[in-house]
Amino acid sequence: MEKSDFVIIGGVAAGPKTAAVLARRKPNAKITLFQMEERISYATCGMPYFASGDIDSFDMLTETSYNVNRDPEFFKSTKGFDVVISSEVIKIDRDNRTVKVLDLKTGQTFDHGYGKLVIATGAKPNNPPFEVAESPNIRHFTKPEDAIAFRKSAQTGQVGKAVVVGAGFIGCELAESCAGLWGIETTLIEKENQVLPYALDPEMAAIAEREMKRNDVKVMTGVAVEKIKLNDDGNPVVMIRGSESIEADFVFLCVGVTPRSELARGAGLEIGEQGGIRVNDHMQTSDPNIYAGGDCVQSHNMITGGPMYLPMGSIANRHGRVIGENLAGYDAVFQGVVGSFLVKIFDLNVGSTGLSQRLCEKLGLKSETVWGSFPDKPDYYPEYQTMTLKMVYSPNNGKLLGLQAAGKGDIFRRVDVFAAYLMHGERLGDLLDFEQGYAPPYSEAIDPLHHLACLAIAQGRGLHLLPPVAPSEEDAQYIDVREPAETREEPFFSENGLSVRNIPLGELRARLGELDRNRKVIIICRRGPRSYQAGLILKQAGFEHVEVMCGGTQALR
Amino acid sequence: MEKSDFVIIGGVAAGPKTAAVLARRKPNAKITLFQMEERISYATCGMPYFASGDIDSFDMLTETSYNVNRDPEFFKSTKGFDVVISSEVIKIDRDNRTVKVLDLKTGQTFDHGYGKLVIATGAKPNNPPFEVAESPNIRHFTKPEDAIAFRKSAQTGQVGKAVVVGAGFIGCELAESCAGLWGIETTLIEKENQVLPYALDPEMAAIAEREMKRNDVKVMTGVAVEKIKLNDDGNPVVMIRGSESIEADFVFLCVGVTPRSELARGAGLEIGEQGGIRVNDHMQTSDPNIYAGGDCVQSHNMITGGPMYLPMGSIANRHGRVIGENLAGYDAVFQGVVGSFLVKIFDLNVGSTGLSQRLCEKLGLKSETVWGSFPDKPDYYPEYQTMTLKMVYSPNNGKLLGLQAAGKGDIFRRVDVFAAYLMHGERLGDLLDFEQGYAPPYSEAIDPLHHLACLAIAQGRGLHLLPPVAPSEEDAQYIDVREPAETREEPFFSENGLSVRNIPLGELRARLGELDRNRKVIIICRRGPRSYQAGLILKQAGFEHVEVMCGGTQALR
Repeated sequence: MEKSDFVIIGGVAAGPKTAAVLARRKPNAKITLFQMEERISYATCGMPYFASGDIDSFDMLTETSYNVNRDPEFFKSTKGFDVVISSEVIKIDRDNRTVKVLDLKTGQTFDHGYGKLVIATGAKPNNPPFEVAESPNIRHFTKPEDAIAFRKSAQTGQVGKAVVVGAGFIGCELAESCAGLWGIETTLIEKENQVLPYALDPEMAAIAEREMKRNDVKVMTGVAVEKIKLNDDGNPVVMIRGSESIEADFVFLCVGVTPRSELARGAGLEIGEQGGIRVNDHMQTSDPNIYAGGDCVQSHNMITGGPMYLPMGSIANRHGRVIGENLAGYDAVFQGVVGSFLVKIFDLNVGSTGLSQRLCEKLGLKSETVWGSFPDKPDYYPEYQTMTLKMVYSPNNGKLLGLQAAGKGDIFRRVDVFAAYLMHGERLGDLLDFEQGYAPPYSEAIDPLHHLACLAIAQGRGLHLLPPVAPSEEDAQYIDVREPAETREEPFFSENGLSVRNIPLGELRARLGELDRNRKVIIICRRGPRSYQAGLILKQAGFEHVEVMCGGTQALR
Repeated sequence: MEKSDFVIIGGVAAGPKTAAVLARRKPNAKITLFQMEERISYATCGMPYFASGDIDSFDMLTETSYNVNRDPEFFKSTKGFDVVISSEVIKIDRDNRTVKVLDLKTGQTFDHGYGKLVIATGAKPNNPPFEVAESPNIRHFTKPEDAIAFRKSAQTGQVGKAVVVGAGFIGCELAESCAGLWGIETTLIEKENQVLPYALDPEMAAIAEREMKRNDVKVMTGVAVEKIKLNDDGNPVVMIRGSESIEADFVFLCVGVTPRSELARGAGLEIGEQGGIRVNDHMQTSDPNIYAGGDCVQSHNMITGGPMYLPMGSIANRHGRVIGENLAGYDAVFQGVVGSFLVKIFDLNVGSTGLSQRLCEKLGLKSETVWGSFPDKPDYYPEYQTMTLKMVYSPNNGKLLGLQAAGKGDIFRRVDVFAAYLMHGERLGDLLDFEQGYAPPYSEAIDPLHHLACLAIAQGRGLHLLPPVAPSEEDAQYIDVREPAETREEPFFSENGLSVRNIPLGELRARLGELDRNRKVIIICRRGPRSYQAGLILKQAGFEHVEVMCGGTQALR
């Protein structure tokens, strides 16, 4: 039996990162990494962009930035540790500190001893809750083979129609991959009533849905797939409850992933509430000789203090660093996660960090929300872009809980800065003090995050705010406080033909007599600030039932 | 004598913001704002982009985003307060709570009473320490007239040559304005040995200087202007100590600004060490009935705990909110500043937040530094851009002190996130836990800030790091660990022809015998990470004198 000081199971993100950090810190350690697949350390998150054709060759996802392939030789010569590919660890014997390894090429098994063990076995795709026929054209999207098979079919013109089941991040990215470069007729099906149900609230998801529809993706939400069968030609047919079946040349099943924790479970290690391996803040499992990181573990949510399963390559890399440091004898901790996401949906940038309003409701956390649409630099600067933001916070103490963003503008900064504030447990008042880098080509003098915090404070003082949704209250007086030219250019959209009266903000104080003080007034504008100002004017004039729609027409595009 | 509950002096940023917030919170308050100029609430920071022609008309800087001019009528009808233009407050009588106002159109003066007073008189341009002739073509760049006069001359082809004296933010922006769209032969003169001396350290400023030179701006640093006179044709001539004089059609004097605090000083209010009005964290002066905000006050630096003069439109707006809230009877504080900057220099994004190494030295603060060059999204993703970052931190406790950034990539996020960390007084370990939004079109799995924090930790454990500067140590062995193809494509630049040996990282362990163990080894690569890894390999192999150049060739472009 061979023996290493350190054995690492899993070769995609957390595993190689652990090994690399450990080899740097402890040069003489003997480190062996077992990887089931032939490929090691490939960029899983880049696969949708290989599928789409944005990235030329799959090799780009397995190479270093200087075009050297990340194969076992690379890891040995450059990083200083051993990688054994095509080798699956099938059992952990904690008493004898050995792992049983199956050589997938020969079918032989062998034992390998360890001093310390690291489990980085990643995640596996969920099985959908419906029957699925066997076909090379019906696939999850978790392995390189999935991306390579689709790309080959797409670029040889064999995919005229595609269906993506599941509108999470990967599902949305794949819908774009299909409809974008390849021009495939694409249907995206989601059982929840919105896309991106775990990151966004419905009114924010609606912005993303409209962008997909503009780009010819057929989006079906609130729809349950019954079965995926094959027709007589062997092509997939997606059968839907209460709707017509959809024939397709390719079907992707993107219905989430589950921690690959069987090995740990089999060895008697503690497993968390959400199926991931339980680790402490040193990434140590219930066995002090065994660490775990990446998509197979359960994380600690820094906002709720509860568990969170967050399978992300970025988190996995940070886990790997912490484990590597600890194995080398240093003291490193992983404080936890807040849940930050970004996803590109055609020309739209979408992101979130922290808790959505929906998630707060599920968790029984009291939350309050504000919205706004903002240019990402001053209006007067050429080529500014806009974005709509939603902030979630606690009405009890003003603690920040979450941010959601969608638009063509620079949402990244706001998501990342908000994440930093979330990680420090900060409040509305702290956000008001945020000192953004400011120059007209890049940002406004008052940051969108400042505006949101001010709006939240105003809401706390009694201003009634509404989400950006099309008007539907028949009893209310809708007042559009934009300039007449704006209302002509972009009429306010109303699903049920409700009339909207235009009173430009500058005329409002003088035209209060036109409004019925006994009926509710709902105010709308382009982005939100004018409605806010108008709301205050009406309140000051003694109007009692005043509501302000946040985000404006901009958020309804 | 007229009397208002609230009198505000100054109508550009802090003044109107104070008034607007106050009018919202306290609708029946009588608020009067006196503005010296005819224009109110114009976007001073946008003036360089009007000068450059990027912004069509000056009106865009005085209009709201919905094209309504911000004139006294606008403020009355929309914001609910009175603005009196062309009126200079020339004296404050604290005993009688009155201000003496000079009507600049009639030359008459009158008294106006106040309950509470707000001073938002802004800043005025420094007088240069040399003699300057009177000419409409020699100007500061602080007033709309300056921008309008230049633009008129430039667009009628009257400016063939321009000189900008002072390479701070405005000076750099103006150099681009001149040389960019108008194709003016432009010289930028700075008395310090680098551009942007208050925001960047020399090696970071060098990146910006090279970009200016690539765009045909002649940059002269470490150069003292002796005098600016007029030649026989009445054109400016810039006379320089120890160098040839430069004739120009237009000269800008951008040698900094000073708080306009005479009025406050005359009224006996306390003035800070740096000439700005002293205020407490409620923005209240030494007279409880008088508040002050914007470019006329001195701020509190949250990192050093000392005073800082930071004239920025963004800060002024935040001051205004705090003053407005306090005047309305709420309790708002302004916690202080860290000093965040962004500036566009042609295709380069440049920024900084917190303290530079230079400033730490001046303040006697012990600091340590790391550098790195990074793609702003994964290398495999199309159209990634790169950037070079420098981090300054305390070697004593790992406290974060500052970040500098230059490159074509998305530096904004990193500057803003780092600012958030600075405002919380955080340390290296906290930065390692930062959860960035991650998706390949937008970011890497490991954020540049994580890399910098790791590098700082490695430095703390004995790795010797060098700044990105061209090699100059004749006694050292320079090793370039890039791939041969890379070294051919971009040979390593050496000012004095020092030879650099190419040993690709993957071959280093096998080729250690080629190196002289008794001589210092300096390692270079493209961005930094390979040199870092190579440095560790040499240290582990027992090499004692190993130094790693951070940032790589990328930082020397």
